[in-house]
Amino acid sequence: MKIKNLEDLFNHTLEDIYYAENKLVKALPKMAKASDSPALAEAFMGHLEETKEHVTRLDEVFKKLGRKAKATECPAIKGILEESDELMAEIRDADTRDAAMIAAGQAAEHYEITRYGTLVSWAKLLGHKDVAMILEKTLKEEYVADDKLTKLAVSRLNKEAA
Amino acid sequence: MKIKNLEDLFNHTLEDIYYAENKLVKALPKMAKASDSPALAEAFMGHLEETKEHVTRLDEVFKKLGRKAKATECPAIKGILEESDELMAEIRDADTRDAAMIAAGQAAEHYEITRYGTLVSWAKLLGHKDVAMILEKTLKEEYVADDKLTKLAVSRLNKEAA
Repeated sequence: MKIKNLEDLFNHTLEDIYYAENKLVKALPKMAKASDSPALAEAFMGHLEETKEHVTRLDEVFKKLGRKAKATECPAIKGILEESDELMAEIRDADTRDAAMIAAGQAAEHYEITRYGTLVSWAKLLGHKDVAMILEKTLKEEYVADDKLTKLAVSRLNKEAA
Repeated sequence: MKIKNLEDLFNHTLEDIYYAENKLVKALPKMAKASDSPALAEAFMGHLEETKEHVTRLDEVFKKLGRKAKATECPAIKGILEESDELMAEIRDADTRDAAMIAAGQAAEHYEITRYGTLVSWAKLLGHKDVAMILEKTLKEEYVADDKLTKLAVSRLNKEAA
């Protein structure tokens, strides 16, 4: 990694979120499979489709910038998914495990929200208007996905776990 | 870790955020020292004081629950701060480094926002009303801290970096 200016930092962060999205494409089906609640499994599978679309959009962003799509290992998302894996393996009670997975899903969403938020503002500053619009579309979907998980959390699932 | 029900999961997550807050108490002065912009250094130092207060509040929460304050290693915040350290060491250009540190600070804030959000809703479900109120106070401050960094990001700093 050689970061000399904001353009380089922007590119580095794109590679970071590209890694994160691809990791999530692999993690979400496992999370859906481990879900006891059909509504939660459905939420994870629905977000999987969106996440695949986010990867496609990032491919488009790299293309627009004349760069090769590349993933740079991101310790943050690795840490979030590591915690999620540990909890999935550890918790036997189905409702409690669902509550833990909702929390893990939200941690992943928030990570993406903060990264896309940063990327959108940098894209604008750097004059990449088209790219900013694409990234903003994804940012909005991450907010909606987080919101869906919040609703699931405060409604049925956690009450059952308690 | 033995998590049998939501109360156990709540306790585990309290230990996770206790670890994160204590890590941040150590990281924030380094981030302030590495900041080129006085406004950014001030934002990090201001948030350090708040973060110390958050640790004190968590001590109070553990006490109210009749439990010993304990930290459980949290791979997510470790990952976020690891990325931040790498960027701080790597980037020579002061304005670009400041932009990277704002982004790292916001990633940490978002991690805390998602965790405290979860903890507040679980505390309410479990009937820990006093504890929910304490945690909600911190949650609000994390939102404000994130907002401050957003304002710094979109104003002077990033423009300079570009």
